[in-house]
Amino acid sequence: MTLLFVAPTMAAADWVAALAQELPEMPVRVWPDLGDPGDIRYALAWAPPHGLIASLPHLKAVLSLGAGVDSLLSDPTLPATVPVVRLVDPALTDGMTEYVVWQVLAWHRDATAYRAHQRDRQWRKMPERMAGDRTVGIMGLGELGLAAARALTALGFPVTGWSRSPRSIDGIGCYAGADGMDAFLASAQCLVCLLPLTGETEGILNAGLFVRLPDGAHLINAGRGRHLVDQDLLHALSTGHLSGAALDVFETEPLPPDHPFWAHPQITVTPHVAAVTHARSASVSIAAAIRELEQGRRPRQTVDRGRGY
Amino acid sequence: MTLLFVAPTMAAADWVAALAQELPEMPVRVWPDLGDPGDIRYALAWAPPHGLIASLPHLKAVLSLGAGVDSLLSDPTLPATVPVVRLVDPALTDGMTEYVVWQVLAWHRDATAYRAHQRDRQWRKMPERMAGDRTVGIMGLGELGLAAARALTALGFPVTGWSRSPRSIDGIGCYAGADGMDAFLASAQCLVCLLPLTGETEGILNAGLFVRLPDGAHLINAGRGRHLVDQDLLHALSTGHLSGAALDVFETEPLPPDHPFWAHPQITVTPHVAAVTHARSASVSIAAAIRELEQGRRPRQTVDRGRGY
Repeated sequence: MTLLFVAPTMAAADWVAALAQELPEMPVRVWPDLGDPGDIRYALAWAPPHGLIASLPHLKAVLSLGAGVDSLLSDPTLPATVPVVRLVDPALTDGMTEYVVWQVLAWHRDATAYRAHQRDRQWRKMPERMAGDRTVGIMGLGELGLAAARALTALGFPVTGWSRSPRSIDGIGCYAGADGMDAFLASAQCLVCLLPLTGETEGILNAGLFVRLPDGAHLINAGRGRHLVDQDLLHALSTGHLSGAALDVFETEPLPPDHPFWAHPQITVTPHVAAVTHARSASVSIAAAIRELEQGRRPRQTVDRGRGY
Repeated sequence: MTLLFVAPTMAAADWVAALAQELPEMPVRVWPDLGDPGDIRYALAWAPPHGLIASLPHLKAVLSLGAGVDSLLSDPTLPATVPVVRLVDPALTDGMTEYVVWQVLAWHRDATAYRAHQRDRQWRKMPERMAGDRTVGIMGLGELGLAAARALTALGFPVTGWSRSPRSIDGIGCYAGADGMDAFLASAQCLVCLLPLTGETEGILNAGLFVRLPDGAHLINAGRGRHLVDQDLLHALSTGHLSGAALDVFETEPLPPDHPFWAHPQITVTPHVAAVTHARSASVSIAAAIRELEQGRRPRQTVDRGRGY
């Protein structure tokens, strides 16, 4: 039994070393050096070439190397019967929490205004608000959303959350489904998108959603670029209905040099760095998932293919 | 018995309203409308004119309106026998925690570099580090330092602390006094100054201190402007020994328009807004302190005049 590492945009060496430590019994091959495709039992993959997974006759499961599985499920040739396993990486969760807390505080403490004042050598205090008066709404209450919510409530922010299926989480105002969306959006002075990208969530951050946010709301998108309709954000900023945005993900990455987001004074652009998978910490849960699969069990983080996450 | 509110730079109306609610039995006068100075039993003060406190014959105590008492103790005419009471305001503590966490995350997540890349339309990822590998050193382990330390440890940062007298705090590496300074500074990849301003701490952030920090360390000063020797910071940044600084307080405030800090690419300037006193929440502890004084007791937050805080 052999593991195939296939992630054209990632450095393989760290992964091979970490996997050798956590899963010493399993030989690893690094794409494109496939060897005999019949040997491959597991694929550890991020944005693999379409058709590759389908070409592995004895594949038992695909394990994602990133928090989202959209880059795997978007392959139309992906066999419906092969289980797809999401990554759970505590270091990735921590990184996302840092990013969300950083961007929420930058919004709450007027980072953009103070930067502009510094440039103009202006000593000018902004009206001060208390965290307890500013609600952060988080779309997506999986591992990442929940960890960010906990960190924000610890800092005194009221937090609401929206998810596809109803959840009940102590200390967080939970809303679910289409029925819960209006009330959730009305609560969110700062909206944080941590949703998975699925057919249902593509383009969800659009004019029709923005209009239901409170006047002057702020957007943080650390989900996927295709959650956002770029032109709708630019319009909502131009009318003043939204006051600003921090974006880590984009429909086209790298963000093209002529894209209007780069120079927009109310938009903070970061180059898809909110949360990075760490070979060392991720290999622990990858090894555990593979051992479960070897024992004929279904890892908790197995993707519901119908739902898309 | 009457309370005098004397804070030339603060709006009195909020305070008068909040005090009327928390301390309804006490008439309040707002400087410069002193009336008969012999009526004044308590002064609630921030940077009062020198000599004013000494001119009140029946004054029982001075209560500070800010977290520091340096603006009171710097009055050479302040009678040695009048107790000075520090402010404890949970909202001010929360505000300082927000500021410190915000600036630590901005350092940890390379905010300055990403802002420069955005300006240049450059999609460029910075090397990613884990919070667990980056130690934050906090100078000053009073109410403010301790709250900031707790919030940072919750985010996964190792935290060390330095104080004048030895302290022992769970989860924080504590150092004290001159003997503990070298080891403390060697630990601090990010140094946060939350010290009170006293004869001993004035100018403490100087070349001799910076050289004992790890190479590439970052400075956050939310204490007082006079803790910092401006030229020494500029020099440490120019050699690269320090990598950046976030400064909220300055020797002269407002920071003069021609000061080199404004335009320095590695310095973030905020206009003394890290933590603001809130009349509503502060009046609760002010009222409690006055009631203790009326009962002949000494409030816990009474300043040790010899020590200066």
